Amino acid sequence: MSSTAVLSPADLLAHWQGQRRLTRRVIEAFPEEQLLTYSVGGMRPFAALAGEMLSIAVPMMREIVTGESQPYEGTAPTSKADLLARWDAATGELDTWFAKLQPERFGEIVTLFGQFTYPVWSQLFYAIDNETHHRGQGYVYLRALGIEPPPFWER
Amino acid sequence: MSSTAVLSPADLLAHWQGQRRLTRRVIEAFPEEQLLTYSVGGMRPFAALAGEMLSIAVPMMREIVTGESQPYEGTAPTSKADLLARWDAATGELDTWFAKLQPERFGEIVTLFGQFTYPVWSQLFYAIDNETHHRGQGYVYLRALGIEPPPFWER
Repeated sequence: MSSTAVLSPADLLAHWQGQRRLTRRVIEAFPEEQLLTYSVGGMRPFAALAGEMLSIAVPMMREIVTGESQPYEGTAPTSKADLLARWDAATGELDTWFAKLQPERFGEIVTLFGQFTYPVWSQLFYAIDNETHHRGQGYVYLRALGIEPPPFWER
Repeated sequence: MSSTAVLSPADLLAHWQGQRRLTRRVIEAFPEEQLLTYSVGGMRPFAALAGEMLSIAVPMMREIVTGESQPYEGTAPTSKADLLARWDAATGELDTWFAKLQPERFGEIVTLFGQFTYPVWSQLFYAIDNETHHRGQGYVYLRALGIEPPPFWER
């Protein structure tokens, strides 16, 4: 199977953490008030979107590794400092749980949060895609506020 | 290396094409005038963002497979029908070029569009992430227009 290895588990984790560093810069770019309250088109403020990312990343990895099912629970950051502290804590926890994921399990089909059934690799891609999707929305909020967002290609 | 195969090339292509089907639904959700002209915060209209996706996907795959370097060229769709026709043509071309990519090349470091040097897998992830990022922005435009976007999880 060596000829079909698209990327290694370490590559995937590095990619994800690179995405998370960029999202952290987007959180930092918001003034606190706008982070917690501003949005466009009746959508959620960026703090709520980032809270959703936190509710997916570590809980998803933990459930994949331990097999212990738990319902999805959204979190509501109460301040910019609270959100950044939780973001940084999740960075280390993600590394820790990822290291416990046996490499042969990426193709295993698992049900997470009691309802989503896909291969492990696809669950992880969903988490990354969902973060990228909502971070892109944060870029619009920042532009609408007249704030220059961090460069998308910088990780 | 079988124990480190996160996903197969076929999985990656299917994932990408699933993302592209969702982006197509977002294009379809826009009324033509707003597709070509509407934006938030001084950003580009969604037709221009989708044009950028078209300027990356097939040209990137072609350059990876053939090794023939070409500068990045943005495209400017002139109508919704033009954009959708080009989108659908790219779907088949992407399948064709992807099938010509030798599986052992995913880890090879290549320079594309004369300036971006990364492993092949990372280049492809960039294309997918860039599409997800800009499609997320299209969701904000649709919400701001009072139009319900397609469900993010539907592929």
